[in-house]
Amino acid sequence: MTKHFLGLADAMPAEISRLVALARRLKSGAVAEGGVIRGRIFGMVFFNPSLRTRASAEAAMLRFGGHAIVLSPGGDTWRLEYRRGAVMDGDCAEHVREAAAVLGRYCDALGVRTFARMVNEAEDAADVVLHSFAREAGVPVVSLESAMEHPCQGLADRMTMEEKLGMTQGKRFTLTWAPHVKGLPRAVPHSAILAAASAGMYVTIAHPPGYELHPKYLDKAKAWCAAAGTSFTVTDEQLPACRAADVVYVKSWGSPAHYGKPEAQKEDFRRYRGWMVGLEHLAHPKTILMHCLPVRRNVVIADAALDDLRSVVIDEAENRLWTHAAVLCELWR
Amino acid sequence: MTKHFLGLADAMPAEISRLVALARRLKSGAVAEGGVIRGRIFGMVFFNPSLRTRASAEAAMLRFGGHAIVLSPGGDTWRLEYRRGAVMDGDCAEHVREAAAVLGRYCDALGVRTFARMVNEAEDAADVVLHSFAREAGVPVVSLESAMEHPCQGLADRMTMEEKLGMTQGKRFTLTWAPHVKGLPRAVPHSAILAAASAGMYVTIAHPPGYELHPKYLDKAKAWCAAAGTSFTVTDEQLPACRAADVVYVKSWGSPAHYGKPEAQKEDFRRYRGWMVGLEHLAHPKTILMHCLPVRRNVVIADAALDDLRSVVIDEAENRLWTHAAVLCELWR
Amino acid sequence: MTKHFLGLADAMPAEISRLVALARRLKSGAVAEGGVIRGRIFGMVFFNPSLRTRASAEAAMLRFGGHAIVLSPGGDTWRLEYRRGAVMDGDCAEHVREAAAVLGRYCDALGVRTFARMVNEAEDAADVVLHSFAREAGVPVVSLESAMEHPCQGLADRMTMEEKLGMTQGKRFTLTWAPHVKGLPRAVPHSAILAAASAGMYVTIAHPPGYELHPKYLDKAKAWCAAAGTSFTVTDEQLPACRAADVVYVKSWGSPAHYGKPEAQKEDFRRYRGWMVGLEHLAHPKTILMHCLPVRRNVVIADAALDDLRSVVIDEAENRLWTHAAVLCELWR
Repeated sequence: MTKHFLGLADAMPAEISRLVALARRLKSGAVAEGGVIRGRIFGMVFFNPSLRTRASAEAAMLRFGGHAIVLSPGGDTWRLEYRRGAVMDGDCAEHVREAAAVLGRYCDALGVRTFARMVNEAEDAADVVLHSFAREAGVPVVSLESAMEHPCQGLADRMTMEEKLGMTQGKRFTLTWAPHVKGLPRAVPHSAILAAASAGMYVTIAHPPGYELHPKYLDKAKAWCAAAGTSFTVTDEQLPACRAADVVYVKSWGSPAHYGKPEAQKEDFRRYRGWMVGLEHLAHPKTILMHCLPVRRNVVIADAALDDLRSVVIDEAENRLWTHAAVLCELWR
Repeated sequence: MTKHFLGLADAMPAEISRLVALARRLKSGAVAEGGVIRGRIFGMVFFNPSLRTRASAEAAMLRFGGHAIVLSPGGDTWRLEYRRGAVMDGDCAEHVREAAAVLGRYCDALGVRTFARMVNEAEDAADVVLHSFAREAGVPVVSLESAMEHPCQGLADRMTMEEKLGMTQGKRFTLTWAPHVKGLPRAVPHSAILAAASAGMYVTIAHPPGYELHPKYLDKAKAWCAAAGTSFTVTDEQLPACRAADVVYVKSWGSPAHYGKPEAQKEDFRRYRGWMVGLEHLAHPKTILMHCLPVRRNVVIADAALDDLRSVVIDEAENRLWTHAAVLCELWR
Repeated sequence: MTKHFLGLADAMPAEISRLVALARRLKSGAVAEGGVIRGRIFGMVFFNPSLRTRASAEAAMLRFGGHAIVLSPGGDTWRLEYRRGAVMDGDCAEHVREAAAVLGRYCDALGVRTFARMVNEAEDAADVVLHSFAREAGVPVVSLESAMEHPCQGLADRMTMEEKLGMTQGKRFTLTWAPHVKGLPRAVPHSAILAAASAGMYVTIAHPPGYELHPKYLDKAKAWCAAAGTSFTVTDEQLPACRAADVVYVKSWGSPAHYGKPEAQKEDFRRYRGWMVGLEHLAHPKTILMHCLPVRRNVVIADAALDDLRSVVIDEAENRLWTHAAVLCELWR
């Protein structure tokens, strides 16, 4: 059966640990371990735009002698049909069965980027685009962020924590919601809490009422924390949750209650602007500040915090490259 | 004189056979024969969008150690002037004389993709974009589908028939028109009948009245069939034409009578929906079903036929890669 | 400190000479000198579209075993914030501090393309986009044309003059303005006069009243001419200035007086159409005609001149490739 990398929730904590360990070895110069990438082609299909993910994955291939083919069909130029049995006399000119199978003949693995539509929660949870590609491609498929998870980001997050904290076991991870001008998908926070839970950390999530993450990921993170002997907490008191943390991980996301209601989301932006993270959230000299980027300065995080030496966001972004390489090595070995 | 690959109609059947034979050797691992690609740059200019052609050609270069530069000027951002003597005070900021000559200095060959405009038949038949590039580039030019032919697709079609049928000589090839929501160019069917005729097959074309292919390609295919001792037939009776065939090649195209009349074309779509190909068109256990993709399921071909084991559309698409490599090897040797 | 290549005005004439000499050696087959490019990644960020610059730079990397990552954020999809301290609750989703720093982690150098907005002269002169990238990237930054200069074009221009004239010292260079349907930035002429002045040439600029270049570049070119013992002249008499020249360098640009007034610029187009360059401007059999391309035929330059054997525009464009390679070799050595 073809192996895929579709989400951290499908993995075991030990697998995540192994991937991060490999990424760290690749970063420290273990060129031979990356040898399996040489001459291979990674085809990336971006249904939603990307600069960081695309550049880091392409660089990962090139650094180890491989190649990337970047396809950016855009929203309108290449609409795919995903339903079985559809009579395709509408907007979609191709079915995913052919599209994925054909690209799988040209490439050694496919990466797929697709955002949550944030109109219907069940539709997003099904993550149809990603799973259709995985079913039809005939080669390994890697999620480059789907509706529900951003697992390569999660790996980079965990790698960064290991680099900065040394031992992660028993350290305190706080994910805090932050304000934003619009409601964003929950893929990044889902993967982030799984990354932290898999690393043996105490996990706390701070968000305003109504901003719950999806139960599937909450339950999975809770189970991993329980297995590791740590706690898993959700709170709406941001400041103490951050001031107690070794890692303050900042991210904005939209409320599931506001799906399809951008106006309600905007109102919340005004109501919760005070959730912006600043220096006052970083209580300890060794606390680190994380964010997946891009970040809106002085809206999500204040300049003073982002420019503080405890901010590790650039290293975190760099680690996207090394974890992409590790995932592909693992799938191709 | 610079060699080009602009259309099957410009070639001899023996040259087509030789290219397909080379493609099959490259597919079966004759890496050394592809060595001429190593280090070379294939510049691809897409005046019309493409995913399959672009990905297969880029993969062909990368597989053999070469490189591709993909330029997608789009319709509006880089309008070229093609007329000699034009006073360029309008929309076009560059003349093809400079554009093609300059790209020819950066690349070892250029691929050009341009669709029929389907407004004026004589204009399409002149295929000005493709031939202007060939005249000005100073390096070999490859058609990646032009107004009149899609010759790399034709090579992949013939390669697939050889793989699946073994001996093609004396086998029966039926190209059948199929319904579609809009009128498509005739480039693919033109190259397909030349591919079949060059392979020594009996060629039958089935289409509704008014859907004639261009006389240049009909005459050429007829001549090649005559030379091979096979027959060349055009009919409007689809079912018997398909049921007698070893190869059922399905493709929709617009009527030349409807050039510039999208409404008339839509009316025909309703009138001829019954031309959709299904299992009933595949009479024999060894008949193969072909289509160049993308295909609208349950409009052009029914699910039952496309999902049947006799459908070879994915292999046909894969062979685009190997035939691209063969064409470039031949041009650069 | 990280070295950058942001403009000829920041360099010394001797450095320019050295870069051009390296480019000429690379063109003539000095593969070993290009060895530093092997395995490196050049990330190119195009805030404004480009075909020639992009293709030549990508080809330069590939020719010497390196790689290019091309990012075309476009005007709207990736608006960056450049102001310190901005509250980013508007259109910009990312600050250049993060964007440049992150790309600098993935690539060994960054190229940046950004046009003058031509609304406010002081704003253009500050060249904020380019200098922000240089400050934040952490790796060498190359201007692929900014608001004020197009230094890689300037290097290619000088290289072409050396190839065609042999000795450039004491030769006469005339930059002449030409009509165009719209007002273009002055980046190319700024770099062109510096290229000529650095080569020890007599420099003349011919343009209609009101079309002055920016004082910074006029003053720098004048100083270099003085140091070389040549003259620097500005005139509004086009024909004699061209007929006396060894090099007629044609380029259109907008009047600083028309910044933000496209209608006034259009009126000037009608008034000065007679400034189109033709055969009558090329008095001598050995005079060469140059233009950076793209060129509007029979508006900027007449067909007869552009198609004359004295036109070297295609060689000039080819030299973009070799000078890109030289700049990157120099930055990475």
